[in-house]
Amino acid sequence: MGTLTELFAPDRIAVIGATAREGSIGRAVTTNLIADYEGEIVPVNPKYDEVLGLSCVADISEADADMAVVVVPPQIALHAVEAAGEAGVQNVVVITAGFGETGGEGASREKQLREIADKYDLNVVGPNSLGIMSTTGGMNATFGPDNALPGGMSFMSQSGAFITAVLDWANDEGVGFKDVVSLGNKAVLDETDFVDHWGDDEETDVVIGYLEGISDGRAFIDAARKATQDTPIVLVKSGRTDAGAQAASSHTGTLAGSEQAYEVGLDQAGVLRAESVQELFDAAQMLANQPLPENKDVAIVTNAGGPGVMSTDAVGDSDLSMASFSQETLDEFSEKLPVEGNIYNPVDIVGDADIDRFTDALDIALADENVGMALVLSCPTAVLNYEELAEATVELREKHQKPVAACFMGGERVNASASILQDAGIPNYFDPSRAIGALDALAEYNDIQSREYDEPTRFDVDKEKAHKILSRVKERGDNRLGVEAMGLLDAYGIPTPQGEIIDDPEDAREVAASIDGPVVMKIVSPDILHKSDIGGVKVGVEDEDVEDAFEDLITRARNYQPDANLLGVQVQEMVDLDTGVETIVGMNRDPQFGPLMMFGLGGIFVEILEDTTFRVAPVAESEAREMTEEIKTAPMLRGARGQEPVDVDGVVETIQRLSQLVTDFPAIMEFDINPLVATPVGPDEDSGVKAVDIRLTVDPESL
Amino acid sequence: MGTLTELFAPDRIAVIGATAREGSIGRAVTTNLIADYEGEIVPVNPKYDEVLGLSCVADISEADADMAVVVVPPQIALHAVEAAGEAGVQNVVVITAGFGETGGEGASREKQLREIADKYDLNVVGPNSLGIMSTTGGMNATFGPDNALPGGMSFMSQSGAFITAVLDWANDEGVGFKDVVSLGNKAVLDETDFVDHWGDDEETDVVIGYLEGISDGRAFIDAARKATQDTPIVLVKSGRTDAGAQAASSHTGTLAGSEQAYEVGLDQAGVLRAESVQELFDAAQMLANQPLPENKDVAIVTNAGGPGVMSTDAVGDSDLSMASFSQETLDEFSEKLPVEGNIYNPVDIVGDADIDRFTDALDIALADENVGMALVLSCPTAVLNYEELAEATVELREKHQKPVAACFMGGERVNASASILQDAGIPNYFDPSRAIGALDALAEYNDIQSREYDEPTRFDVDKEKAHKILSRVKERGDNRLGVEAMGLLDAYGIPTPQGEIIDDPEDAREVAASIDGPVVMKIVSPDILHKSDIGGVKVGVEDEDVEDAFEDLITRARNYQPDANLLGVQVQEMVDLDTGVETIVGMNRDPQFGPLMMFGLGGIFVEILEDTTFRVAPVAESEAREMTEEIKTAPMLRGARGQEPVDVDGVVETIQRLSQLVTDFPAIMEFDINPLVATPVGPDEDSGVKAVDIRLTVDPESL
Repeated sequence: MGTLTELFAPDRIAVIGATAREGSIGRAVTTNLIADYEGEIVPVNPKYDEVLGLSCVADISEADADMAVVVVPPQIALHAVEAAGEAGVQNVVVITAGFGETGGEGASREKQLREIADKYDLNVVGPNSLGIMSTTGGMNATFGPDNALPGGMSFMSQSGAFITAVLDWANDEGVGFKDVVSLGNKAVLDETDFVDHWGDDEETDVVIGYLEGISDGRAFIDAARKATQDTPIVLVKSGRTDAGAQAASSHTGTLAGSEQAYEVGLDQAGVLRAESVQELFDAAQMLANQPLPENKDVAIVTNAGGPGVMSTDAVGDSDLSMASFSQETLDEFSEKLPVEGNIYNPVDIVGDADIDRFTDALDIALADENVGMALVLSCPTAVLNYEELAEATVELREKHQKPVAACFMGGERVNASASILQDAGIPNYFDPSRAIGALDALAEYNDIQSREYDEPTRFDVDKEKAHKILSRVKERGDNRLGVEAMGLLDAYGIPTPQGEIIDDPEDAREVAASIDGPVVMKIVSPDILHKSDIGGVKVGVEDEDVEDAFEDLITRARNYQPDANLLGVQVQEMVDLDTGVETIVGMNRDPQFGPLMMFGLGGIFVEILEDTTFRVAPVAESEAREMTEEIKTAPMLRGARGQEPVDVDGVVETIQRLSQLVTDFPAIMEFDINPLVATPVGPDEDSGVKAVDIRLTVDPESL
Repeated sequence: MGTLTELFAPDRIAVIGATAREGSIGRAVTTNLIADYEGEIVPVNPKYDEVLGLSCVADISEADADMAVVVVPPQIALHAVEAAGEAGVQNVVVITAGFGETGGEGASREKQLREIADKYDLNVVGPNSLGIMSTTGGMNATFGPDNALPGGMSFMSQSGAFITAVLDWANDEGVGFKDVVSLGNKAVLDETDFVDHWGDDEETDVVIGYLEGISDGRAFIDAARKATQDTPIVLVKSGRTDAGAQAASSHTGTLAGSEQAYEVGLDQAGVLRAESVQELFDAAQMLANQPLPENKDVAIVTNAGGPGVMSTDAVGDSDLSMASFSQETLDEFSEKLPVEGNIYNPVDIVGDADIDRFTDALDIALADENVGMALVLSCPTAVLNYEELAEATVELREKHQKPVAACFMGGERVNASASILQDAGIPNYFDPSRAIGALDALAEYNDIQSREYDEPTRFDVDKEKAHKILSRVKERGDNRLGVEAMGLLDAYGIPTPQGEIIDDPEDAREVAASIDGPVVMKIVSPDILHKSDIGGVKVGVEDEDVEDAFEDLITRARNYQPDANLLGVQVQEMVDLDTGVETIVGMNRDPQFGPLMMFGLGGIFVEILEDTTFRVAPVAESEAREMTEEIKTAPMLRGARGQEPVDVDGVVETIQRLSQLVTDFPAIMEFDINPLVATPVGPDEDSGVKAVDIRLTVDPESL
């Protein structure tokens, strides 16, 4: 698969299946191309010599094209793509439907399409796509009713209808695009490829998308992290809610990854996630057209107090803050504003403000270096001309090179000024909370751009030993492992309490004797999951009672399930919970994003309060540390209420080591370390963490 | 203060200060009245015989008016109002500014205005108001640039500029109003009066408002509960955030009640609270124009899969659910829809759907009794005419009498159809989440309407004993009480551990002996707040050690602060925390809403996790029970993780009794019962709650 530059800027496009038949897709595509495309168009159709005034060839091999759009019926579409590949056409847009989305025959057709693309190293968009557009070359290779206006947004969508709706709206509003791609079934090219491409595309200022699923989460994270160094990405990923996920799966057959995985995966990727169409375009237009702010502090300049308060609430709801003005600024405001006004932020220049007072106030506010951005907020008054205010706003944005949002409130009175603002890339909103939301997106992208992604640490571990332990599941009918897999933790350098699994009472006593203090004894059997319920756990057993306890545990297990596979009894050092905090580290493997690490405090904190945090593995040190910081109970790790802080560094390292384990062994489908007890660091700088119990599920096929 | 009916439907309006001078407020008001007002207008101004073609009188006494609008300068405005009262005019709108909002002289002027209103029993709007409107009589008694279109929304606003902006927008969109009130400084009439009035007004379908503060929270709750039996109320209360509250206070000088109090107070009042202008009007238009749904289940009918998924997410985000269709409905869909479609919800009728298929599908969906409401969702296609779809949508809404929201996506293609929809009270949105949000408001109001507000229980208590205990603060320089006020709890029937405050070691031993098991001993002194920090609390003291412990505690207190006011030592039964849960019940008195009760689990749950819940007192039993149910840790009261459930009924009763205490004694400014230990109900049906410690602050002036 080559670069996608030519896909969006081909010199010669062949339309395979072009026709002049009214109402046909072939006609629509050809007509759309004829409208503005600067290159050459070659209809391909053995039935015609000429289509819509263009001379037509019988076969793609005669077209000498660098891109082909395929609109023939599904039965012959594969032939068309293969012929294009044969003819050396590198870029193919398959508009034809009747592939994976129909299941059955269509699905196998889609598989073949992928094979053909591999064979000829083709860039294939679709199938089941509305087509693609690129406004730089005037290319509209879609069968939709509208062409896009030129602009800096590149837009991909898993819904073709949504593109149609967006373009109709955008053309009306004067909102423009660089490229538009209807992803269709994503048989070959998917969101990751386009993020990769647009990230390097000078003319793309912001990447936006509507996605119902991401094909390869980890690849997407890597591509997006790279792209967002220069180019913001804003996505609606639908299927956020349970109901939505179900609807998405019946719409595109997307195998639903968990929302949890998408949420953290997209965040780790540096993507801004919009929850609605409105949020998507509010953020995208701001990102496409405005400079980035130096800080998060907003100045609000308003001729109306009430809306000023509402806007301040919107700032309070966002990650932005109200700017504190310098003394110089306050002095200037005092000089220029009437006494009834407010020189503090929000700056109230009062209802009788004319254009001069408004311009002065905005100029003063934007000149203050404590101000990162501004909201121009106005209600209609008899003494203020909105068009003049719009022009002043545009000029001052240019002068100060700081982002400015507009909220000229009203209806018809606003229209002319809104056009002036929109032409300068300043969308006008009736609702101040939308304007503030859009500014917030700028600040959020600023944070993303300044992120430094550290590489996951590779610890020195005993991978072979771990492999041996995991392989045990192959030797038995069960894919679940319990305490008998504690050795995995040793192999990966994670501290565990002293202990062994013993199958003889005398040995048990010996082991207990070698451990300081009383011990914990547990039945070890893959067939007995809830050991506590049958009295299969004994706590605080003194050395002299170990043999009796052993016999008793075995009897209980046998009584409970005579044919249970009994691996023995675990004799384990007692971990003092009084000075420690119980934590849980877990992992679930997500179909799209792979291993998803979980961290939280044990017991009610996870079970009732659901105070947990997630990251897609491999997890770098900074990410593991964030996990210990962002749970609500984080203060309990750091010594709340007079307790000594626990060994947070030890927890952070444990999360990373476990992340390495699940990255090394894709066969581990899920696990829980519960509890991972965290205590203060010991007197000899001993690690303060101990993994007391483990449970995991393995896919023996992947070993 | 009489009824407000005449305020909105006067027969004869006097404009005190009417003039024809260009640019004057007097001219603007008179002109606005002349435009459409059906009654008579009498300019009052000694300088003229005629104003704008109307014959002018010199004095209000000659006007024979039932309403007066005052626009004269502040210095003579009070005279004008007094003269109006004298002349028997009951309703006065004071547009004149220069009252409370300017402080100083203005504030005393406002006080006088209130006195005059009292004296003549006047309905006074303002001062510092834009004026009022009522579209039924064509009355526009404001100086704003726009008149309102007729409609079912009655609108009050603490910002006049916001009214101007809203009307400009509303006129452009075709959105209408019944009454509009610019509240101004609310010297006499405030939000509660208008809620009261509009709640009984047949022509008002929904009350909406922009408020920065509520003058009397409890009165507002009572009025709103009554009004919302028939009429929904949707409010933006700004100053929600810390930044916003600060801005609100500098704007209208509103003494900020806590956001916590507003949040629960407005909820208890049955008010729908909008967080933005957009939310306000999205909800209000739906409530004003659509029938209420029978249930919360939405059917989505769409010609585009992607937007269908987005809409489903919006349903997932709301309190609504996706309707499950009956078998009959599914059968009908199967018959009418193509196989590529989806007969399950969201119903995908596919991109080639024409008006007939769309109409059929929507008709079938709305006929299903599992469906409470519908979203009509459409992307532009070549085979569908949006105007026809708009007409079908309106007809089917009428036919089925179920609420319908519209999301016809697009720009110019949508305009004509949007007007058809708007005329029928179905606003069209580009963004499905707004349409779903508006439907959600209907369902939420449904819930409010079916609320039953039970009266707070009046328990039989010893109010006199409580009064005596509280009065002690008067006898000393401090307004804080600690364990020495435990008697308050006895007086109000709240169980406390056995114990006494003792000032002699031998008596202490005697008391300890009368208590089963070891005791807790604590220093009692208003001057030593953090007793634990100086070792002033001893736990598990055996009888024989009581005398030594007593001496030791006294010594510690003396060493810590030689002149501390030492009330003695509390000897208290030890409460077993092992089988119980520590809870906290607290109260803060809010300047607007009065006593705000708080409940939560003690320790880290309040301090770190902030898992608390609030209600404005007096709290009825159902409200107290909700408090125990809505904290996240509620399962811990009800027996999580194998524990026995604690005495929740006892907790509920304690909250109510404490609510009665703070309602009976406005002098109690704040208190904490921490902990209120809740254990399982005892073997003899003993109460499972015990209030172990108390701290309160009293305002001696209010006793």
